[in-house]
Amino acid sequence: MFESAELGHRIDKDVWDREVPPLREALLDAQYDLAAAKFPVVILVAGVDGAGKSETVNTLNEWMDPRHIQTHGLAEPSDEERERPYMWRYWRLLPPKGKIGIFDGSWYTWPILERAYGRIKTSDLDQDMARVARFEQMLIHEGALVLKFWMHLGKTVQKKRLKSLEKDPKTSWRVTPRDWKHFEMYDTFRQVAERALRATSTGDAPWIVVEATDPRYQRLTVGRILLERLRARLDHPAPVVPPPPSQPPAPTLDGVNILKALDLSKRMDKKDYEEELLILQGKLNLLTRHRNFRKHAVVLVFEGVDAAGKGGGIRRITQALDARRYHIHPTAAPTEEERAQPYLWRFWRNLPRRGEVAIYDRSWYGRVLVERVEGFCSEADWRRAYSEINDFEDQVVRNRSLLLKFWLSISQEEQLRRFEERETTPFKRFKITEEDWRNREKWPAYEAATCDMLDRTSTEIAPWTLVESEDKHFGRIKILRTLVQRLEDEL
Amino acid sequence: MFESAELGHRIDKDVWDREVPPLREALLDAQYDLAAAKFPVVILVAGVDGAGKSETVNTLNEWMDPRHIQTHGLAEPSDEERERPYMWRYWRLLPPKGKIGIFDGSWYTWPILERAYGRIKTSDLDQDMARVARFEQMLIHEGALVLKFWMHLGKTVQKKRLKSLEKDPKTSWRVTPRDWKHFEMYDTFRQVAERALRATSTGDAPWIVVEATDPRYQRLTVGRILLERLRARLDHPAPVVPPPPSQPPAPTLDGVNILKALDLSKRMDKKDYEEELLILQGKLNLLTRHRNFRKHAVVLVFEGVDAAGKGGGIRRITQALDARRYHIHPTAAPTEEERAQPYLWRFWRNLPRRGEVAIYDRSWYGRVLVERVEGFCSEADWRRAYSEINDFEDQVVRNRSLLLKFWLSISQEEQLRRFEERETTPFKRFKITEEDWRNREKWPAYEAATCDMLDRTSTEIAPWTLVESEDKHFGRIKILRTLVQRLEDEL
Repeated sequence: MFESAELGHRIDKDVWDREVPPLREALLDAQYDLAAAKFPVVILVAGVDGAGKSETVNTLNEWMDPRHIQTHGLAEPSDEERERPYMWRYWRLLPPKGKIGIFDGSWYTWPILERAYGRIKTSDLDQDMARVARFEQMLIHEGALVLKFWMHLGKTVQKKRLKSLEKDPKTSWRVTPRDWKHFEMYDTFRQVAERALRATSTGDAPWIVVEATDPRYQRLTVGRILLERLRARLDHPAPVVPPPPSQPPAPTLDGVNILKALDLSKRMDKKDYEEELLILQGKLNLLTRHRNFRKHAVVLVFEGVDAAGKGGGIRRITQALDARRYHIHPTAAPTEEERAQPYLWRFWRNLPRRGEVAIYDRSWYGRVLVERVEGFCSEADWRRAYSEINDFEDQVVRNRSLLLKFWLSISQEEQLRRFEERETTPFKRFKITEEDWRNREKWPAYEAATCDMLDRTSTEIAPWTLVESEDKHFGRIKILRTLVQRLEDEL
Repeated sequence: MFESAELGHRIDKDVWDREVPPLREALLDAQYDLAAAKFPVVILVAGVDGAGKSETVNTLNEWMDPRHIQTHGLAEPSDEERERPYMWRYWRLLPPKGKIGIFDGSWYTWPILERAYGRIKTSDLDQDMARVARFEQMLIHEGALVLKFWMHLGKTVQKKRLKSLEKDPKTSWRVTPRDWKHFEMYDTFRQVAERALRATSTGDAPWIVVEATDPRYQRLTVGRILLERLRARLDHPAPVVPPPPSQPPAPTLDGVNILKALDLSKRMDKKDYEEELLILQGKLNLLTRHRNFRKHAVVLVFEGVDAAGKGGGIRRITQALDARRYHIHPTAAPTEEERAQPYLWRFWRNLPRRGEVAIYDRSWYGRVLVERVEGFCSEADWRRAYSEINDFEDQVVRNRSLLLKFWLSISQEEQLRRFEERETTPFKRFKITEEDWRNREKWPAYEAATCDMLDRTSTEIAPWTLVESEDKHFGRIKILRTLVQRLEDEL
């Protein structure tokens, strides 16, 4: 895999002087076309130590308009980043549509290092790379152009390079003991890197190995490949084909489904409710002050039809929490900034630190509910969303976050009653809109989409809790009890 | 994931009687349209014991035209199958375009069983499932419609089912001690299955969980989903969009590449050659009679431009082998039967048993060489082929096969000399055609495609051996030496 990058590729200065000006002009043109074409470009610059990674990144910044490039040199993760899932720092930095994001250091850096140092096993590396491949596949489905450059130096060239950097007082600072340590591990690194590259070279996002012996050859090669891939995509955009009409979700054969199977007659009288509410809120408050609470982040998801009681359920939780510990994230139509990113981006960026509670009032499940039913995304998009969501939640859970998902269920009749109440109660009128009435007419389609969602995303790692909310008291207590029980189990 | 399949779904006999006739008619129509539409349908029927898997398969066979259905009930693998990579038995049975293949038992069966019995680790299961997901993705890229049904029974229902089967003398034979053993492991199975399903439910090939409590509900649901997915694909075929023109492979910036870097002046005089040839052939023959030889299969791949000496190199090997031990597979344009299958199918089916040598005179690399350069496949097809080939070779190697890949390299001038010699030597004239001359004109494109191929597929697990074949003696001896050395290392 690296043989072609050990041939001593080099070009003369006159070739460089002749080739660079037209390349720069063409890259600038492509960059402006990109701003209009509205897809993001993700460039990874990875490779062995001393292979001129940051110099190459600097060159690209010099050659192009840096206002449309976001460059990220990634060192050790920060405290903020360590408390989130591994991919959080990268999600934060994804370029929006129309821009180029260059990562000097990437999601590959740590798994390769960890494996080379023997701190993780080969099977762990394979699992990490499988996740990375799925992440990149998602980026591509969301429209991104992904370019992955691996800067390579043969073993003898790398040794020479380190020695000459060390000898020159002007550059000796760039050679650290860590660089020499890594050099001693050259063969191990090479083997691990090859395994990682092999597992993640796909048709859409192949690794491009570039020899770094001669900086001119290296930079010009990177520039030319970048131009070629950019132009190919700009000049031949994916054809706009009207997708086949998405069928409304079909009900089950016998009309039975997991929502209809719920016993909505469950009730709790006011006195019992008020008593238990206080007890549970007290327990919850104590639990959030438990010394182990700071070891976990808590993610609460609330979904349900309009007027199912999501807001009320959330308030009964937050009443028991220190305001510094929680954030409520209401999920409405995405903003312009959010629309320029993969649909999961706005949820990723709100993931809590350890010791914090993030409450999502509606969530990433919008893609397989409202977006599916209303045709806001294509069938292919919502079909792939189930596994993307499972991947996302898997990362959240593996980061020792406690993820609880509540589906609040009411009958169609109860919804009507609550709608009417909202319309006639002055201080509740803001809660009801024309859209709520329109959605209500699509009840069967929403119900079927919800059942599909529950089937595909109620997993062992992140099960749904179905909450019978016909009676508000019963529903709220069930939510609180579930949360308290879970915290007691985990802390 | 299984909750919706534990609700006691059932339908009455009159619904069944009313629904089945039109469903059968529609399925038959779809089946005939499928024959014309020319894509294969792969149906997996998996699930818990006693969940009516084979009965459902039988029903589908009754309802449709069995001449266009291939049904495979897979029990323990045969001797033949055990000596090939795990996926070999399934590759053999893939349905051709226009047909439906039903697998009762599939590539999921063994990993799930092995994990449930604790014979493999969770990380092994994950790796297996990642491979399965890539395999299914390949099927889909090659045009297949993949439907995966998971037949589910709740724990209490399964127990009742087994008891009632056991009580009735007519059916008691169907309950084996293994069934009861598995029942005791119900929760383990459920957990493992959920993990497997979660890892392999994709947008294109989601798992469909069907409750098996009531056979009528189960069969009608399977039939209706099959019809729905078939019709969706038949009525909305992927739009035929002319792909963007594929650029000819570009040469490197400095004109240096791994082929040009070879020292083609290496020679060996005739006397030394004849002497060493005899010694190496003798060693090779002895090695194939070594007692450990039968523990491995040997796969030899020969690639190179026309007249590079592939045939001559192969003959020098086979001269040393027992004719019962080897098969030569010359790779020409695919036959009609082969064109109805994924492009790797014809190579899979020729994989050798242990103790056998399969020699491929040209190979699966045609996709990234001639098919790429001549535009016989789309850019997307050859781009994804590198990783599909690496996956394929990974499976071959993990099955303890010895895989050696030889690229025979000659200069353009030497090729011309050999072509002219072939044209003027009567007994060699059959070896040279118009096409050879045409391909020769595209030398730079073929060279660049070859370099890409070597970069992307010369891996630690399956490296290429570059053979300087300008001098036939030198080339043949290098091939034999490499093979003998490898066998000596491994046996």
